[in-house]
Amino acid sequence: MNHVTLINPFEVPAGKEDEFMERWKQAGEYFRQREGFVSTRLHQSLDPEAAYRFINVGVWESPEHFRQATSTPEFQELLRGFPFSSHPALYRLISE
Amino acid sequence: MNHVTLINPFEVPAGKEDEFMERWKQAGEYFRQREGFVSTRLHQSLDPEAAYRFINVGVWESPEHFRQATSTPEFQELLRGFPFSSHPALYRLISE
Repeated sequence: MNHVTLINPFEVPAGKEDEFMERWKQAGEYFRQREGFVSTRLHQSLDPEAAYRFINVGVWESPEHFRQATSTPEFQELLRGFPFSSHPALYRLISE
Repeated sequence: MNHVTLINPFEVPAGKEDEFMERWKQAGEYFRQREGFVSTRLHQSLDPEAAYRFINVGVWESPEHFRQATSTPEFQELLRGFPFSSHPALYRLISE
């Protein structure tokens, strides 16, 4: 098993949560249909002023699957309509 | 159950990973002894140049337990010796 964890902190100003959630659902529908998608867990900060209002912790079968899913014209189109900064990167679990 | 998720992205320059891990182990020993500590999962980025080289996803029994654990003189002492920027905040899981 070569599973990899995608962690993506999103900068969403207070008051923009509903807009974020609408965009998130669109993106979620796209990702769930991609090969190699395993799971996603979306977290919302208790503090509305936290640096990252939402953080996604997702799992993919491999880095290649995630890269393929984010290299399509359809994903680029989703990105263009997404008005929030984020910091996605792939991680491996090293201790628990 | 009122469990809460602590997510903490750490800025660690490439080449400083060993120093981070040494500090992390010290902090882990402290947290594991605190009331309300449930679990911790430390992730390392595949890309050494990722904005956040390490991200911890921990679980605490409640926000109050986490705040108590980070309000002690012993924790403040640990923080003073910790030379990396981080962005800790408490989260609730809102969708999976």
